[in-house]
Amino acid sequence: MKILLIGANGTIGSAVRGELEPRHDIVSAGRKGADVSVDLASPESITAMYRKVGQVDAVVCTAGETYFGPLSGMTPERNELTIRSKLTGQINLVLLGLEHVRDRGSFTLTTGVIMDDPIAGGASAAIAGGAIQAFVRSAAIEMPRGIRINHVSPGVVAESIETYGPYFPGFEPVPAARVALAYRKSVEGAQTGQAYRVY
Amino acid sequence: MKILLIGANGTIGSAVRGELEPRHDIVSAGRKGADVSVDLASPESITAMYRKVGQVDAVVCTAGETYFGPLSGMTPERNELTIRSKLTGQINLVLLGLEHVRDRGSFTLTTGVIMDDPIAGGASAAIAGGAIQAFVRSAAIEMPRGIRINHVSPGVVAESIETYGPYFPGFEPVPAARVALAYRKSVEGAQTGQAYRVY
Repeated sequence: MKILLIGANGTIGSAVRGELEPRHDIVSAGRKGADVSVDLASPESITAMYRKVGQVDAVVCTAGETYFGPLSGMTPERNELTIRSKLTGQINLVLLGLEHVRDRGSFTLTTGVIMDDPIAGGASAAIAGGAIQAFVRSAAIEMPRGIRINHVSPGVVAESIETYGPYFPGFEPVPAARVALAYRKSVEGAQTGQAYRVY
Repeated sequence: MKILLIGANGTIGSAVRGELEPRHDIVSAGRKGADVSVDLASPESITAMYRKVGQVDAVVCTAGETYFGPLSGMTPERNELTIRSKLTGQINLVLLGLEHVRDRGSFTLTTGVIMDDPIAGGASAAIAGGAIQAFVRSAAIEMPRGIRINHVSPGVVAESIETYGPYFPGFEPVPAARVALAYRKSVEGAQTGQAYRVY
């Protein structure tokens, strides 16, 4: 398959690349250092990316920025980063990408454990996760041409534990390679409308 | 209690008003025909509303617009109505309203059944519902001064069945008065971080 992987340089994205690369042709996209550059927060940039990449069999997104910090510091302006990037950015990848995905292709988006199991500082990221989760469940029943859509909800990733561990007390770290398996299941499997929770 | 009710003229808002008015002082807000006018999609308008209304014990929102229609017609531009109004609008009511809510006061937001139980045409509205649900669960653990936050997820309302019924085949209609009880539970009760599903 030809797979467009947005966020290929991130911790999870690298693991997804490692899992898929042996069997597929990966085109990476990201803000920098990727085959194609894209700014998720810009619909024009997403459209330009698809024009460059052409038809694909699968779109996988492990990218998206969020505001992470206390609710008391969560202004509408700071929350806007989450709304524009991880939330609307991932949805626009689907809305603008549908015509570029081949019959029976797939989209795989990324949410996260804190939408279900909240932590202090995570309210803004939770918004994006909850939105994507509901969108996937709903869009799955209306996708054309047998195209599928799922999301992966990773727990706190073991490789990021030095940075994020203190915010996730008592959460069991998950190796990125285990998270990557869920993306493989979504891309190579046959399910749609699913939430793959890895925690 | 002094309760700010945004969306008081809608089908659900009217029922909530009827349920709360006998025991509380209601200040209504909405786009027109209310005590105070407000445009949920505008943070400036929300700030101006709170300045006019002053301190309150509870904020209840039954307002918020969404794009409703097929996924094939859901452009980023059309989805933006949902993102700005029902999604970010309700969140900004909380972020900008915190300082105007008294100790141990509450926020009650509105989601809807289709975030959990999807229908054709509902993907955009589902986004808002999923986002608000996750936000409420997460924000509840960080609210200051004992302030609570919940959301009500109504099923298809019996009073709107002529308009919406065809989109909800097999969904059991719920009388608006029954939905209104959930808002009363949120405002007068002591729970926080809850999803009150009325369907």
